[in-house]
Amino acid sequence: MHLRDDPGWRADTRFLSHHERLSAAEWLDRLREAPGLDALPDQYNEGPGLRELEAEVATLLGKPAGRFVLKGVIAQQAMLRVWTERGGTPVVALHSRSHIELDEDGGYQRLHGLVPVRLGTWSPFTVADLDAVAERIGVVVVELPIRRAGHKLPSWAELTAISEWCRERGVPLHFDGARLWESAPYYGRSLAEIAALADSVYVSLYKTIGGLGGCVLAGDEEPITRTRPWTTRHGGNLYTVFPYVLAARAGLRKHLPRMAEYRERALGLAAALARVPGVRVAPEPPHTNAFQVYLPGTPDRLTAANRKLLERENVWLFAHFTETPVPGLAMAEVGTGSSTAAFTDSEAAELVARLVEEAR
Amino acid sequence: MHLRDDPGWRADTRFLSHHERLSAAEWLDRLREAPGLDALPDQYNEGPGLRELEAEVATLLGKPAGRFVLKGVIAQQAMLRVWTERGGTPVVALHSRSHIELDEDGGYQRLHGLVPVRLGTWSPFTVADLDAVAERIGVVVVELPIRRAGHKLPSWAELTAISEWCRERGVPLHFDGARLWESAPYYGRSLAEIAALADSVYVSLYKTIGGLGGCVLAGDEEPITRTRPWTTRHGGNLYTVFPYVLAARAGLRKHLPRMAEYRERALGLAAALARVPGVRVAPEPPHTNAFQVYLPGTPDRLTAANRKLLERENVWLFAHFTETPVPGLAMAEVGTGSSTAAFTDSEAAELVARLVEEAR
Repeated sequence: MHLRDDPGWRADTRFLSHHERLSAAEWLDRLREAPGLDALPDQYNEGPGLRELEAEVATLLGKPAGRFVLKGVIAQQAMLRVWTERGGTPVVALHSRSHIELDEDGGYQRLHGLVPVRLGTWSPFTVADLDAVAERIGVVVVELPIRRAGHKLPSWAELTAISEWCRERGVPLHFDGARLWESAPYYGRSLAEIAALADSVYVSLYKTIGGLGGCVLAGDEEPITRTRPWTTRHGGNLYTVFPYVLAARAGLRKHLPRMAEYRERALGLAAALARVPGVRVAPEPPHTNAFQVYLPGTPDRLTAANRKLLERENVWLFAHFTETPVPGLAMAEVGTGSSTAAFTDSEAAELVARLVEEAR
Repeated sequence: MHLRDDPGWRADTRFLSHHERLSAAEWLDRLREAPGLDALPDQYNEGPGLRELEAEVATLLGKPAGRFVLKGVIAQQAMLRVWTERGGTPVVALHSRSHIELDEDGGYQRLHGLVPVRLGTWSPFTVADLDAVAERIGVVVVELPIRRAGHKLPSWAELTAISEWCRERGVPLHFDGARLWESAPYYGRSLAEIAALADSVYVSLYKTIGGLGGCVLAGDEEPITRTRPWTTRHGGNLYTVFPYVLAARAGLRKHLPRMAEYRERALGLAAALARVPGVRVAPEPPHTNAFQVYLPGTPDRLTAANRKLLERENVWLFAHFTETPVPGLAMAEVGTGSSTAAFTDSEAAELVARLVEEAR
C-alpha cells in the first residue's frame, strides 16, 4: 500500500522519508517560486527556460552539452543505443540490480535489441568483473548509487579504476546518476569531478531534488545530439514540459545545497534504527541519504502495522515493504529529505520499535 | 520561424489560429480551473484525477477502457505492437502522409520492427487500396483527419466500408484520432458512433482541446491493458503527470463543446481566403477546423512578410510556411480556435492579401 492510496492520509501527517507531500494546488503555488514564469512555455523541447536548465545542469556536471529529457527511461535507452551503435556491438555491461535491468520492463532489450552482460550481485561491480567478460562490450553502465542493492556506491578507487579500464579500451562509460546529486557527499568531490570519469551522465530532476520529473543527459556535444532521433522515436518530444522545467529549477535551488545535510541525517538515523532489536540497516553506514532497513516480520503484517501508526500517531514511516531472501525479515527503504526533520533519531527508532512489536 | 522565437511577440498579439497564448504563469492560473486540485498528484499513472479523466474520455468514445498516456507517439506504437503481435505479422497498413509515417522519426519501424504498407497520396485511402494489398496485414491505421494531406477525412461511407473490410477479415482497425474531436462535426455523428467503427482509438488532449499534452488510448479492456509493458518500455510511466491531467480536464470542458463552432468558422474563413487573388485553400471546403492555404511566394519571403505584419499590425497569421511541389506556391496551415474570433473573415482575407503583396 502506498500512502497516496490510503484514506488515513492527512495534510499534517509526518513522513520519515523524502519531502513534504504537496497537493496539486500547493504544487501550482510552488512552481511560482521558479524563474521564467513570464515567458511562453517551451514547445517541443525549445524554449529559454529549458535551455537555461540544460546549461545549468551541464555546468554543474562539467560537461559541454546537456539535454532535458522527460523520462530517464527514454534518455538512457537513447544514450545506450548511441554508444552501442558507435561501438558496433549491442552488448551493455551493467549491474544485475540496476534500474535499467530491473525497473524498465526490459525496454533496452525489447525496443533496442541490446544485450545485457550482468555484473555484480549485492555490491557494485569492479574492474575484475569487467576483466572477466569475454565478449566485446559496447558500453559500460555504472549506477550511482545502485538503489536495488541498497543505494550502494563503489569506492572512489573502484570508480576511477572502472573509468580507466574503459578509457584504455575505448569503451564508453555511462553513469546512471539518477541519484548522483545524493552521491557526491560520499566521495567528498564535486559533481563535475565525478562526472569527469564518464563519457555520459544522466541525472534525475525529481527524487531528492524534489521536482515533478524529467532528467538531463550530459556529455560531449556530438553523442548527446545523436540521442535526438531516439528520444523522438521514444515519444520524448512533448508539446510542452514547462511544469517540469519550473519544478526542476526550483528544486535545484532548494534541495541541491542540502544534499550533504540529508546524508548526514541518514547516517545518524541509520545508526539509531540499527540499535532497535532485530533491525538491521544496509549499507551500514549508508553511502547516500538512502538506505535499506531489514525488519522482523512479513510485508503484510508490517504494512498493517505501518497503517496503524498512521491512524494512531499520524506518522508514516515506510512507503513499502518487500520480501527478502531471509525468512522472517522484510525490507523497507528510507530516503531522508526535508520531511525527516519532523522526527528526532530517537523518536524514529522508538516508532520503528513499536512497528516491529505491532507486526510480531 | 515560430512566434515563440520571435522577439516581436507581445501579450496582446492577435493570432489567426488556435487559442490564446498563455505565459507559464497564466497557465498555472488556468490549471486552477480544473477539478481535483486538493488531491495529491497522481504517481506513476495512478491517482483519482487521472482515473476520472480516463473514464470521461472512454465514455465519450463509448469504449470500455481508456488509458492516459503522456504522448501519442508512445500510445500508438504500443497499440500497434499489441495488434501486430496478436496478428502474428508486423505489417501496418497506413496512409503515406500519416503522422506515424512522417512525424515520428520512424519509431514504429526502428523500435518495434514494424513494417509499413503505405496507402494513398493526397486523399484518404479506401477499401480498394486495402484490397490491392497482397500481404497479410497486422493492423490498419486510419488517421482522422490526415493532417499532412490537408486535414482530410474519408467520407462516412468510405470509413464504414474500411471498418467492415477489417471486421470481415479479422484485422484490427486503429484510429489515429489526434484530431477526432475536430472530426465529429464533419460526420454529424457522435464521437462514440465514430469510435465504434474501430477496435482502438487514440485521442489527443492538447491541440484544439487546448491542454498541455497527453492522450487517451481507448478500446476493449484486454488490448488496452496489454499496452502497459510497452508504454513502460517507452518511458511513459512518469512520476507524476498531474499538470497534463488538470489541463486536459479543463480543456475538455472549455473547448469540446465548441468544436462545431470552430469548424463553422473554418468554413467561412476558408471561403474568404479562397477569394484572395492567387490564394487556394485545401480541402475546399475544409473538413475540420483546420485547412491548408496555398499562397504565391517562397517560404522565405512569406516568413519575412508575416513578420512585418506582426511588427506593423501586431497580428500573427501563420506559424510556418513550407515548400510545395508547385513552383511559386508555398503552403501554410490554419486551425481555428478561440483566437480566431479576434478577426472577421474579411479582415483576415485583407491581411492575407497584404501578406501576399508584401512577399511578391
